Amino acid sequence: MRKDGRALDEHRPLELIVDYTDNPLASVLCSLGRTRVLCTVSEEQRVPRWLRGRGEGWVTAEYSMLPAATDTRNNREAARGKLSGRTMEIQRLIGRSLRAVVDLQALGERSLWVDCDVLQADGGTRTASVTGAYVALALACGRIHARGDLERNPLRDSVAAISVGLVDGEVCLDLPYEEDSRAEVDMNVVATGAGRFVEVQGTGEGGTFSKEQLSELTSMALAGIESLGRIQGKALAAAGLGEASSDSAAGV
Amino acid sequence: MRKDGRALDEHRPLELIVDYTDNPLASVLCSLGRTRVLCTVSEEQRVPRWLRGRGEGWVTAEYSMLPAATDTRNNREAARGKLSGRTMEIQRLIGRSLRAVVDLQALGERSLWVDCDVLQADGGTRTASVTGAYVALALACGRIHARGDLERNPLRDSVAAISVGLVDGEVCLDLPYEEDSRAEVDMNVVATGAGRFVEVQGTGEGGTFSKEQLSELTSMALAGIESLGRIQGKALAAAGLGEASSDSAAGV
Amino acid sequence: MRKDGRALDEHRPLELIVDYTDNPLASVLCSLGRTRVLCTVSEEQRVPRWLRGRGEGWVTAEYSMLPAATDTRNNREAARGKLSGRTMEIQRLIGRSLRAVVDLQALGERSLWVDCDVLQADGGTRTASVTGAYVALALACGRIHARGDLERNPLRDSVAAISVGLVDGEVCLDLPYEEDSRAEVDMNVVATGAGRFVEVQGTGEGGTFSKEQLSELTSMALAGIESLGRIQGKALAAAGLGEASSDSAAGV
Amino acid sequence: MRKDGRALDEHRPLELIVDYTDNPLASVLCSLGRTRVLCTVSEEQRVPRWLRGRGEGWVTAEYSMLPAATDTRNNREAARGKLSGRTMEIQRLIGRSLRAVVDLQALGERSLWVDCDVLQADGGTRTASVTGAYVALALACGRIHARGDLERNPLRDSVAAISVGLVDGEVCLDLPYEEDSRAEVDMNVVATGAGRFVEVQGTGEGGTFSKEQLSELTSMALAGIESLGRIQGKALAAAGLGEASSDSAAGV
Amino acid sequence: MRKDGRALDEHRPLELIVDYTDNPLASVLCSLGRTRVLCTVSEEQRVPRWLRGRGEGWVTAEYSMLPAATDTRNNREAARGKLSGRTMEIQRLIGRSLRAVVDLQALGERSLWVDCDVLQADGGTRTASVTGAYVALALACGRIHARGDLERNPLRDSVAAISVGLVDGEVCLDLPYEEDSRAEVDMNVVATGAGRFVEVQGTGEGGTFSKEQLSELTSMALAGIESLGRIQGKALAAAGLGEASSDSAAGV
Amino acid sequence: MRKDGRALDEHRPLELIVDYTDNPLASVLCSLGRTRVLCTVSEEQRVPRWLRGRGEGWVTAEYSMLPAATDTRNNREAARGKLSGRTMEIQRLIGRSLRAVVDLQALGERSLWVDCDVLQADGGTRTASVTGAYVALALACGRIHARGDLERNPLRDSVAAISVGLVDGEVCLDLPYEEDSRAEVDMNVVATGAGRFVEVQGTGEGGTFSKEQLSELTSMALAGIESLGRIQGKALAAAGLGEASSDSAAGV
Repeated sequence: MRKDGRALDEHRPLELIVDYTDNPLASVLCSLGRTRVLCTVSEEQRVPRWLRGRGEGWVTAEYSMLPAATDTRNNREAARGKLSGRTMEIQRLIGRSLRAVVDLQALGERSLWVDCDVLQADGGTRTASVTGAYVALALACGRIHARGDLERNPLRDSVAAISVGLVDGEVCLDLPYEEDSRAEVDMNVVATGAGRFVEVQGTGEGGTFSKEQLSELTSMALAGIESLGRIQGKALAAAGLGEASSDSAAGV
Repeated sequence: MRKDGRALDEHRPLELIVDYTDNPLASVLCSLGRTRVLCTVSEEQRVPRWLRGRGEGWVTAEYSMLPAATDTRNNREAARGKLSGRTMEIQRLIGRSLRAVVDLQALGERSLWVDCDVLQADGGTRTASVTGAYVALALACGRIHARGDLERNPLRDSVAAISVGLVDGEVCLDLPYEEDSRAEVDMNVVATGAGRFVEVQGTGEGGTFSKEQLSELTSMALAGIESLGRIQGKALAAAGLGEASSDSAAGV
Repeated sequence: MRKDGRALDEHRPLELIVDYTDNPLASVLCSLGRTRVLCTVSEEQRVPRWLRGRGEGWVTAEYSMLPAATDTRNNREAARGKLSGRTMEIQRLIGRSLRAVVDLQALGERSLWVDCDVLQADGGTRTASVTGAYVALALACGRIHARGDLERNPLRDSVAAISVGLVDGEVCLDLPYEEDSRAEVDMNVVATGAGRFVEVQGTGEGGTFSKEQLSELTSMALAGIESLGRIQGKALAAAGLGEASSDSAAGV
Repeated sequence: MRKDGRALDEHRPLELIVDYTDNPLASVLCSLGRTRVLCTVSEEQRVPRWLRGRGEGWVTAEYSMLPAATDTRNNREAARGKLSGRTMEIQRLIGRSLRAVVDLQALGERSLWVDCDVLQADGGTRTASVTGAYVALALACGRIHARGDLERNPLRDSVAAISVGLVDGEVCLDLPYEEDSRAEVDMNVVATGAGRFVEVQGTGEGGTFSKEQLSELTSMALAGIESLGRIQGKALAAAGLGEASSDSAAGV
Repeated sequence: MRKDGRALDEHRPLELIVDYTDNPLASVLCSLGRTRVLCTVSEEQRVPRWLRGRGEGWVTAEYSMLPAATDTRNNREAARGKLSGRTMEIQRLIGRSLRAVVDLQALGERSLWVDCDVLQADGGTRTASVTGAYVALALACGRIHARGDLERNPLRDSVAAISVGLVDGEVCLDLPYEEDSRAEVDMNVVATGAGRFVEVQGTGEGGTFSKEQLSELTSMALAGIESLGRIQGKALAAAGLGEASSDSAAGV
Repeated sequence: MRKDGRALDEHRPLELIVDYTDNPLASVLCSLGRTRVLCTVSEEQRVPRWLRGRGEGWVTAEYSMLPAATDTRNNREAARGKLSGRTMEIQRLIGRSLRAVVDLQALGERSLWVDCDVLQADGGTRTASVTGAYVALALACGRIHARGDLERNPLRDSVAAISVGLVDGEVCLDLPYEEDSRAEVDMNVVATGAGRFVEVQGTGEGGTFSKEQLSELTSMALAGIESLGRIQGKALAAAGLGEASSDSAAGV
């Protein structure tokens, strides 16, 4: 039994509040237990220089934590004048994960900026970012489509992410900060609605892991991601986007 | 009549959600119409180098806008590697405004970090920051006091802020972005619960203003701030802090 | 009586040395008591990117203090690699103040760079910068006009600035460093030759102020600015520019 | 058959030149095919601030590519003034991988700085860095031990790294740039001499992968790492360190 | 005959205005023809970290040009966020030149900050900086001595600098910008009052030079420096420092 | 007799390994005693903005030391976020030295990037950089010529560099770190194959020097450079470039 009463293979409650703010093209407030991330998608009518003239689009992500999101206040990266290695790693991961399910050709020559700002952190901020950002991205694509600017939906599948780890020798799903900080192995898994991996990043933090453990960890993660995917689907359906998106996913 | 139906001397609805996040010592989500700012206070058991050994405390503020807070996405200052002049100006203003009502000697050798992060911007983000941050600061001081670490309440008065301006020749209270962007004169006023000015910052944006207009603008601002103060008081009372704070303010 | 023998409503002697250096389009060494600022105007035949193609000009200001300008040496911002919040605030103020009296359409598609470099600081460096920079700006406009590159004078009025404050409970004009550092209230006022405000920035530094005090402070500032304006006018007249400028101002 | 004639599960020739430079405590020039990385270890008699006073040591890594290491010259990060996200990711990976086999308590209060500078890049620079750096680290520890400053060898095991990927639908070991740039899936695996994972980082680059493929990829990587470990062992033995290191590893 | 009427071996008029500003310990406005540099010396009661505890002092120099000092405005290094290579080269040269004549042991554990800010540039800004800074340094040392904080004068000799060059095949002394920009060879020479070199920096700018030319260039420079030294001596004597300084120099 | 057994006028052994790496257009590993510098030349089909459209080429140099190149590890400039003054000085020197022997018109509108990365430092890194970089530059020009993209060889002469100094009162050639760190005078000389100076940079490090000493120092340097030139010539001849280059040099 875990401190918060969950079973080992149970993720924290996922809540997705669609259109939490009005200014961006789409916004989703994603809560995974106490972890809360505001995910927004903004549109820009041009692409990075190296992509110009190819008729393709681009999806890029930025990630940040508010200073007071963590237990002890962390200094603002804007004040320090540079991004930490951790932030860069995470925003690169989010960007790759989302691009894995986007047909950039179908998106046309536009950029989608995905911003994931952590309002409160309790472990799993990067996985909540991917999971929430997908919903905002699907909404954004749906809206560009609805206004007649896309021939076909650029989304090829859904995508979500979850952490798994070895804590006290047990394989656990979706580690909160308390478990994450003492895990022997920490792994983040990103997978599509079709159950295929996009990213697997496992790290022995003061420990190592066997091939069998890798297999157990990734199986549990896939099951968790399937569950998250159902909640993503419901949120999109409630926002009137379920049909289109499951159609488009059906072809994958 | 204004586009949003308000009278010229009417401010937008102010809503204060106390303890919106759990990790900092105090947090307030402050909504002024569509403008939404998360104000938090974090405590640090030391003061800046130049203040050490004097037994005095410090209150400092940082301000930032999420990239998607504005109508058109603005680039992240952390990515650009430096703070804009506008951000620096605003965070200096918030810090001065709060320090104006704090007895730093009574605070003891500790720092309070006030973070104002704008989730959604529709004009008046700096004034909403001051107004919300005061409530978070009062909660924070109340909590440090409640745990027995302060002999007396370091708050000498309450403080709030509002914008006024000349729009189409009319003196208006609390400008939303649509009015702010075409105002001839734009003024931010910070004042205490006792009705005394802490800051008056008026700028002719492509216009100038007379001494009579200055008087009208500041009178309307003081009335608006009085109204905001009542809402601040109710929020603190609902959080169980009203009595103490009005007592302490009574002596000012 | 003040330490330097001045009456409360008396400003320090203002001296304007025109063409102190030769390389820029115009240069003025502005001394306000011991405060000494070199104000120059340089011309560039293009405008910032966001203004291109509109046929309008731009006026921008930069401000800096030499390291040894102050009593205790202050570190060079170039060595620290970034501008302080104070510097940014001041250069934004100077820029806005000058643009308030310039018809950017009449200036044509060119930029005027105003540089205010403080050689010696004794309080009031930002107000001396505005006051001196206006004279350099008027000279620069006159010279562009004289060489036939302007149809009409882009200056709509003159502009000058002065500080006022509450020191030991008294309203005082033009505070030197010694008074400024212990003032309860510190205010910088920028106004046109026609006596209308461009900027009013008042700050309670460890104090607050009433509506009546605001009125007294701003009245004294307007009178001071009128006096500075006469000295500006004489300096321009001595440089052969008085007539044109008062003509153009006459229409305001 | 691959372009360079290797079997699918064959890694490129690994060559380790011990003591390629004299100034650092240990240095190894590691060639993996055409990829060439200079790995050095320098000792510092203090630890980062957050570790002081605990009697523990620290191992940290930095990674860089010479501008002309790549096919097309890449700009120097020192000239751009900041590290790229890629560089930060890699140096964090190298550091974690080495710390996984070091008993920091046994190292005592000293830091080992591991520098991996890529002289020539042809894919696999991060895995060659880990593989070469381990040898330099083992030499460094041996030398600190030999001079009498360590009670026991802080190395708990050896460590090496290799890339695997899906290229044209085939699982391949140790991708050169030509394969890496068109791989559907790219994975970097770090494992100990005992055959346990330290890091598994797999990314679908424009593709996704199944659980079966993950298993095939990681099995092939483990076999490759075993082969690299034998070459590391020979290099250390030739440098007179083989016995001690296999003894110490025996207890893991 | 040169454009400005000087003989080939004649330097421009050197004018030294002592105590041009009041706040620093010493200040000298140094004019060499149209080139004008404000040289100040500020005292700090501590030395850089690497020198602490040795009882020695330090002399360091910073150099900067005002943006409007040059014919075409140059951007402010503080705004760009970094010093140019040219600035760093020059301030390192000024620092070395001054330290060459200072007995750092005799200076005691204090730092002298020398700031050279170019108000107007017409070639030779680095040599005018050295020449003017020496006078400010001598004044500063004299004042520390006069207030009883030095046992003996730390100045061992005087120092001055001048440029020489090959222009149109002729060896010329003290090049203004017009000559400097088309010189085949450009050389800066720093020498002591005793006629010994401190620095010789000669560069073939699109040309090369022979050993005979090197000899001619350096001879002319030494003669020029002797002449500058006489003017430095007069300025110091006028400031009441001549005797002390020539006494102290006599022992060199 | 010197510590390393050399005569006063003898330089350390110079070894030039041509094509040490494959990716750049040309690469030379230059060893001067224990000092080892990797010099590469990369080609870019465009020139800096200020040179565009003139049909001329450009040669620019960058210099860096690996962190572990020195006896005590030096921090990476990329990590510190800026280049030191020393690095900037050196890379400017290398660039000027090479451009002195290149006919930029004959090079055509292309840039050659010269990178000098110090793998091991034992004094003389800047002179070894110039000496090695010339050989890489000659190879690069030869290769561009060989592929038919140059009408004539842009090299007008060869160039090499060496240090000289006053150590214990003796004039010495090519100082290793041990001598350099205690030299009274340190001088770097760059000269062409024709025996003409390109750069002479002499610094009294805690000493000064006479005109006679300057003459002795530069004579010894010229003789040393002649010797280095013979080794450069052999390396180029071995690479099949000797004839062309001595031909082209013959016309100088």
